[in-house]
Amino acid sequence: MLPTKKEVEKAYKRVKPFVHNTPVLKSSFINELSGAEIFFKCENFQKMGAFKMRGATNAILELSKENRQAGVVTHSSGNFAQALSLSAKNLGVKAFIVMPKTAPKVKKEAVLGYNGIVFESESTTESRRLEAERIQTETGATFIHPSNSKDVILGNATAAVELLKKHPNLDALITPVGGGGLVAGTALAAEFFGVNCKTFGGEPFAADDAFRSLQTGEIAFNKTTNTIADGLKTHLGDINFPIIKKLVSEIIRVEEEEIVAAMKLIYERLKIVVEPSSAVAFAALLRNKKAFQNKKVGIILSGGNVDLANLPF
Amino acid sequence: MLPTKKEVEKAYKRVKPFVHNTPVLKSSFINELSGAEIFFKCENFQKMGAFKMRGATNAILELSKENRQAGVVTHSSGNFAQALSLSAKNLGVKAFIVMPKTAPKVKKEAVLGYNGIVFESESTTESRRLEAERIQTETGATFIHPSNSKDVILGNATAAVELLKKHPNLDALITPVGGGGLVAGTALAAEFFGVNCKTFGGEPFAADDAFRSLQTGEIAFNKTTNTIADGLKTHLGDINFPIIKKLVSEIIRVEEEEIVAAMKLIYERLKIVVEPSSAVAFAALLRNKKAFQNKKVGIILSGGNVDLANLPF
Repeated sequence: MLPTKKEVEKAYKRVKPFVHNTPVLKSSFINELSGAEIFFKCENFQKMGAFKMRGATNAILELSKENRQAGVVTHSSGNFAQALSLSAKNLGVKAFIVMPKTAPKVKKEAVLGYNGIVFESESTTESRRLEAERIQTETGATFIHPSNSKDVILGNATAAVELLKKHPNLDALITPVGGGGLVAGTALAAEFFGVNCKTFGGEPFAADDAFRSLQTGEIAFNKTTNTIADGLKTHLGDINFPIIKKLVSEIIRVEEEEIVAAMKLIYERLKIVVEPSSAVAFAALLRNKKAFQNKKVGIILSGGNVDLANLPF
Repeated sequence: MLPTKKEVEKAYKRVKPFVHNTPVLKSSFINELSGAEIFFKCENFQKMGAFKMRGATNAILELSKENRQAGVVTHSSGNFAQALSLSAKNLGVKAFIVMPKTAPKVKKEAVLGYNGIVFESESTTESRRLEAERIQTETGATFIHPSNSKDVILGNATAAVELLKKHPNLDALITPVGGGGLVAGTALAAEFFGVNCKTFGGEPFAADDAFRSLQTGEIAFNKTTNTIADGLKTHLGDINFPIIKKLVSEIIRVEEEEIVAAMKLIYERLKIVVEPSSAVAFAALLRNKKAFQNKKVGIILSGGNVDLANLPF
């Protein structure tokens, strides 16, 4: 059973007071270059710098009073760790964050900056899961998965809902695909708030598990993930995959050079800071220019948390 | 005689259809850090990437039909060269741009990309001036100075007018100071559209001609200009200086490290691309935190044309 329009609408109203209605940017140069009319939804300007704030906020707001008192727990070394910490802080809830010992210091500090309580694990999936389970048992905290959670998906949907309320006639939406929580939420928004609006995912060839999952109908995994788009290394889950299977038109794969070129264009022409994962959706459009010719296309720029000392251009 | 409120209003209505009403960004992190409430007016998102588009557009729109047919000419290797080229292109006018032979290739290409007609000169002020005069004589084109022109100043004023229309209760406005055209225009906007709104200029210690000009009452020049803020190396002129003398409260000088630190904060927290000159106004506020404590401050982020391969952090 897919989530309903009513559920998406409720999530939109629920998170609205706690997140930014982020700006939508356009560039005549980029439109000429691509042949499409592109509406960039700037979730890099979202609180803590990524769309993940929406899903995290919605998930916490959906908890009962008792559950809020016990706190929330997740395992993430990326944007969701910061998003859960900040939305928990904003709502007066404790957030326990399991991060691998090997996670960069700057990421731990960002979580601590938002009052997240960091627990270190080994870097294996198994070790992270076990540590999160231990915390759940000891504290009664609720586990919130970064992407494979209905409440997180519904929260993520609200970026595209905002975009479609402003520009109702978009022909297509494109998002990057990592764990699948953003593309699933966006596809729900397109289905319920768009007019014949199709949803596409952009994915690196170097971590094309979602592409393969749609081909075989079974969730696929990545053996290696040598991509600059470090937010897109994870795989789909049993909650978001059925939505993706039903509502996403196509996953478009892109080369690493295409990601870097798209990222550079965004910096040069939109004058904004985005992380490599965000550029993947734009790279997907540029690779498939013909398919989007003369179309109105919304691109969700997922986030802007990037190491500025190591830009790839 | 200062320009009048009516003249600023007319310039605002005149350029409005031809420029972006650029977004205003805020950051709770930056507000906490500074103790002020800061409204960043994002002229880096302006057409061709800088506020200069406003002054150039206004100056061309003020020309008679005959003068428009003969074209416009300026000498600039920076943003004004691009601004005059693009606004001339948009209005069906020819733009002759005198650039020193030594100007970076990328800057010449940017001008050519906007249909500007480039003439090369030696890099001395004298050689640039003579070449511009030659073009005027031969083509009948009207010379438009990048900063020391009433029409350019009135056009530049419109960025602050937009900001004050949105946020009428600002206590202060800060801009970077190079040739003086932006700070003069902004001071006019503050005087006519603000409520006790003071105007400040930010300037590098390494090119503090405006600071010295205000001290002595005579236009001062820079012997050396070793600053990263390459848009701020020029000096004031006889048209903008009287406005600055009358209406600008103070020129705040900043060190190079302060410019880089302010620039980094803008990239990291606002997630936008600005050129070093833009960061100078913000650096001025951070250096003088006490003076702006609990004030509402508008900062004009002047532009976003920067060599991304050589960011200073």
